[in-house]
Amino acid sequence: MSSQLTGNQQAIRWHPPAYDIRVESVPIPKIEHPDDAIVKIKLAGLCGSDLHTYRGTEELTDALTCGHEFIGEVVALGESFHNGVTGRPDLYADLNIGDKVVSPFTVSCGECHFCRVGFTCRCVESRLFGTPTTPGGQAQYVRVPRAGGTLYNLRDIVGAAGTSQSEKEDVTKLADSSLLLLCDILPTGVFAAFQALNHPKTLPMMNSCPYPQSSSFARFALSSKVLGAEDVSLTFAIVGLGPVGLCACISLFDILTSRGADFRIVAIDPVEARREKMNAIISTIANKGPHLHSIAVASIDESKDIVEKWTNGLGCNAVLEVVGNTSALTLAYELVRPFGSISAVGVHSGNQIPFSGRQLYDKNVSFDFGRCPVRAMFPAALDILLRRQDVFGAVGGTASLVEKIVGFDEAADTYELFDKGKCGKVLFDPWK
Amino acid sequence: MSSQLTGNQQAIRWHPPAYDIRVESVPIPKIEHPDDAIVKIKLAGLCGSDLHTYRGTEELTDALTCGHEFIGEVVALGESFHNGVTGRPDLYADLNIGDKVVSPFTVSCGECHFCRVGFTCRCVESRLFGTPTTPGGQAQYVRVPRAGGTLYNLRDIVGAAGTSQSEKEDVTKLADSSLLLLCDILPTGVFAAFQALNHPKTLPMMNSCPYPQSSSFARFALSSKVLGAEDVSLTFAIVGLGPVGLCACISLFDILTSRGADFRIVAIDPVEARREKMNAIISTIANKGPHLHSIAVASIDESKDIVEKWTNGLGCNAVLEVVGNTSALTLAYELVRPFGSISAVGVHSGNQIPFSGRQLYDKNVSFDFGRCPVRAMFPAALDILLRRQDVFGAVGGTASLVEKIVGFDEAADTYELFDKGKCGKVLFDPWK
Repeated sequence: MSSQLTGNQQAIRWHPPAYDIRVESVPIPKIEHPDDAIVKIKLAGLCGSDLHTYRGTEELTDALTCGHEFIGEVVALGESFHNGVTGRPDLYADLNIGDKVVSPFTVSCGECHFCRVGFTCRCVESRLFGTPTTPGGQAQYVRVPRAGGTLYNLRDIVGAAGTSQSEKEDVTKLADSSLLLLCDILPTGVFAAFQALNHPKTLPMMNSCPYPQSSSFARFALSSKVLGAEDVSLTFAIVGLGPVGLCACISLFDILTSRGADFRIVAIDPVEARREKMNAIISTIANKGPHLHSIAVASIDESKDIVEKWTNGLGCNAVLEVVGNTSALTLAYELVRPFGSISAVGVHSGNQIPFSGRQLYDKNVSFDFGRCPVRAMFPAALDILLRRQDVFGAVGGTASLVEKIVGFDEAADTYELFDKGKCGKVLFDPWK
Repeated sequence: MSSQLTGNQQAIRWHPPAYDIRVESVPIPKIEHPDDAIVKIKLAGLCGSDLHTYRGTEELTDALTCGHEFIGEVVALGESFHNGVTGRPDLYADLNIGDKVVSPFTVSCGECHFCRVGFTCRCVESRLFGTPTTPGGQAQYVRVPRAGGTLYNLRDIVGAAGTSQSEKEDVTKLADSSLLLLCDILPTGVFAAFQALNHPKTLPMMNSCPYPQSSSFARFALSSKVLGAEDVSLTFAIVGLGPVGLCACISLFDILTSRGADFRIVAIDPVEARREKMNAIISTIANKGPHLHSIAVASIDESKDIVEKWTNGLGCNAVLEVVGNTSALTLAYELVRPFGSISAVGVHSGNQIPFSGRQLYDKNVSFDFGRCPVRAMFPAALDILLRRQDVFGAVGGTASLVEKIVGFDEAADTYELFDKGKCGKVLFDPWK
């Protein structure tokens, strides 16, 4: 057992019923289970889904420590990390005090069927940080359950076989504010793009091969007809340009340009400030290529006209829905073409899905709902993080994803501004 | 222009408001457009979706000629077939009077984006046979619009390069009652299976590779870890054992066994007679292999216990929903595991989808809704038809998909029995 820390720490705490954020002194967490790690927080993020708790929509009755995005350093480890049992996730043998780690926003054991298959957000022991059972990372220290399955050790990348020297150097150079984006919003954006690009209804355009031969198990294919340029031109929409929507757009753009695809993206948000941020990012990521005009930023009404014009009324091949409410889903349905797909990564509430079965049948629509399996998406997200440091690397620029880093003393004000849409992505430095 | 037929023919006609089927004398259809063909019907099928019209749920006000499944012989062709314009679908040059053809249940031009890409059921000129605008195939003759895109010429298979001599012989030996299944129900069953097997959430198990590296565009993969036997074991459910459900089950079984997959299927229907038919088919298709016990036939309540037991409570990897109503969707959701997919090919009504966004988010559920693109699925369906002649080849046996072939004089009685679930798949011979 490693040395336990004692004493108190500062933490950002939410109090019921709603809109009540306080910085309080609470005990430093201790190892409670052999699989636990204690992480000393370097930076913690404020995320859009923190607002579900903040606004009281979760109807919680007890105060809790907020936050599910954090990067830090391992300062204590449970017994499992010293006994090297074979067959357990690698980190149980590899993780050491002093290692720099990024955490997904959910706990994953790394050992159940879902974890092994890569569906890590549906681990049978899944727990969300910043909830009543699992104190969050907007604190100076956090306890990470099942840490050998949950944490992502940045040393793994730097030391991985097959990683080039320049890649290792690139990773070690990344700022904490950049790496923090790996906890949730960048992998979730990558996941939204990934689902859209890999859907069997998108594959004919990506593979230049007609359906169903475009998919893996069309072994009965009788032809290998190659599609013409007109048919493989892709149109996507992204509904919602909060931080995750921005990440989804950058990821989609990055993957499509790296494949040399012929594509257009309409990025949609009703809020002007968010559209301005998106425009600044586009100017940054597309300024040297032929793709500056491949992305249009639009209000809801404008988006319908743009898609109509771009596609001669066919609609989008796929829509990335990054909001999580009924009107976003409705817009996604309106924009998608027949035999299109909707990748819905927004955190949805209890409202009923706003479509009839007939609407979905008549348009052959597909949906992929749900939470990003961050732990499994880390490598993909890190790859994009490294290549898009122009957007992910800086803090506070017009084209930067992270707007500012503040101390805990600004926590209450920051929650309030963020809730009102008056600031973008903010990180907390618990030692500032 | 080929010779036009004149005079009257017999046709099965529906009259409003509901439940009124009459055999009437109506004019033989004529070529109305250069792209038309007139087909002399050999056999026409009665399909579950004919019942939407029969029961009056479509709220139609005029009588119409029923049916969207037919096989026959080309007896007249429009001018397009004689002028060999380049760039048009092959059949405009290849189709001849006397050719034996199968038709999908919808018209597809073969020339629009959707047709070229393989999404033929969403052709911009799509029309469903047996509706007010497009008289159906339960007649002695039928007019086929856009026939060069719509029809499937059986000579194409027999003459196709790459087709072995034995395959050619196999196709020419197929009975019309077997080929008729290619119009709708067999391709729709194959489509239901295909969507489930090719979904990115099923691919890890099919490819023995974790998500997301299991999909095409995970080029950022850092590992090529192979999954263990426990993780790649697949469990499927099929909700609804009408003729399409039976075809879906046979297709799923056929593809999985041919790949040597480790799988189990639970086939579910509340109607005992349908379960008996499914059991007879299983005995036939699985009697020589190790897979006799890979399929369980179950009532709704039994199915939940079976899936619970088989999967230790995880649920099915994918569910094929072949009914098209709210209770079938609800059962599919209950049976599917987190990160599972639902392939919904049932013809749904205007009822709202019975799920909240939160339910779908919390389980990472995917849905593929809609109509089968029969024209694009023909080769896959023909492949399975050839290999499963033990089920698809005969008429009237306990394990036969087709129950009987009757004359038009039995049309009204047959619709009534079929509507009440008192008979299975019935075909009409218009010349009997």
